[in-house]
Amino acid sequence: MSDLVLYTYWRSSSAYRVRLALGAKGLAYRSVFVNLLQGAQKAGDHVARSPMGAVPCLEVAGKTFAESVAIIELLEELHPTPALLPRDPFARARVRALVEVVNSGTQPLQNLHTLEHLSPDPEVRKPWIQHFITRGLTAFEAMMATNDRESGLGRSKFAYGDTLTMADCFLLPQVYNARRYHVDLAPFPRVAAACDTIAATEAARAAAPEAQPDAVADAR
Amino acid sequence: MSDLVLYTYWRSSSAYRVRLALGAKGLAYRSVFVNLLQGAQKAGDHVARSPMGAVPCLEVAGKTFAESVAIIELLEELHPTPALLPRDPFARARVRALVEVVNSGTQPLQNLHTLEHLSPDPEVRKPWIQHFITRGLTAFEAMMATNDRESGLGRSKFAYGDTLTMADCFLLPQVYNARRYHVDLAPFPRVAAACDTIAATEAARAAAPEAQPDAVADAR
Repeated sequence: MSDLVLYTYWRSSSAYRVRLALGAKGLAYRSVFVNLLQGAQKAGDHVARSPMGAVPCLEVAGKTFAESVAIIELLEELHPTPALLPRDPFARARVRALVEVVNSGTQPLQNLHTLEHLSPDPEVRKPWIQHFITRGLTAFEAMMATNDRESGLGRSKFAYGDTLTMADCFLLPQVYNARRYHVDLAPFPRVAAACDTIAATEAARAAAPEAQPDAVADAR
Repeated sequence: MSDLVLYTYWRSSSAYRVRLALGAKGLAYRSVFVNLLQGAQKAGDHVARSPMGAVPCLEVAGKTFAESVAIIELLEELHPTPALLPRDPFARARVRALVEVVNSGTQPLQNLHTLEHLSPDPEVRKPWIQHFITRGLTAFEAMMATNDRESGLGRSKFAYGDTLTMADCFLLPQVYNARRYHVDLAPFPRVAAACDTIAATEAARAAAPEAQPDAVADAR
């Protein structure tokens, strides 16, 4: 499917999720870069694609889709192999719960729009960001431990089990943000180990923020 | 399935979503009440169920599941009829995008934990809440308009199309919060009309916060 077009920004953790999913499924796509720091997401043509004024959007067969969860579920339905969700409904629910701990429980509290609304002061932003990322990763780590106990198969190599799932597509970008904002990852050994496994995949190498053509060497 | 147990709180909009989905599918369940204002969600036994310290959790076949999106997707897979998602993958993506505008784009910014972290001052909380709910409903309304144009079938009766979907399970509780915090709904005619349609269903009557046994007549 060479008609896939991804509206993306190198440092958007939500766009990073979709880049990971596309890579994991071996799907080629063309990128259109939306510079969030320059406010390109607020321009009329982009808002028509994404009324939330956000990336990613994915064009599939000439239609544009918003929201990373909806996009990745769509890719899973259109291109089921390799699967990003287990087959068993109960296992799928475990993966989707991990997804949501990042997607609704963590990232919305620390994304650019929220920070802009909170305060321009980095000294206000930093503890806020660290609080919410630490809280989210604490839950993620606990859920991984519970899932490992439930499976009886020992420690998962990835976020859930031993193959890459949708949960990994959400975890790695969140941990990228955690590192960016100097969140202490020592309390999260399962999360850190899973991220090492994910980061070693070809999909993760291609999806990495610094590997994107629009990446700039700013020190922000 | 009489072995469904819902951990719920009457005024939790996320629990309200799952009550709607259970009702729409005609599934009986037993409620366990978790009083968020008294901090019961932070107690050890509840955190074991929900590491985020949140409701809802749903016990299915002896296992406990967290996160409303994951729970409703699980119900959809275990009990496909009546369906809360369309059959067509592209239409499913539209419904899931509406879900996420509420689930990750709006509710996390105005839930109890976020407000407690923001400020104890109602004068700080109120404009914050109103900003994020208005922003979310603005996007929801725009997406409904786009979806109506795309379908060519005129105005949807529900949030997406003419039957109740997962998007409705998320919209009605969000609009409940909007009314609670005196958000002006005049700019959102499609949203308001859909909510009238949803509210008239038997599932919505049974799921309403005020209809719950743990509802209290506080004026908060």
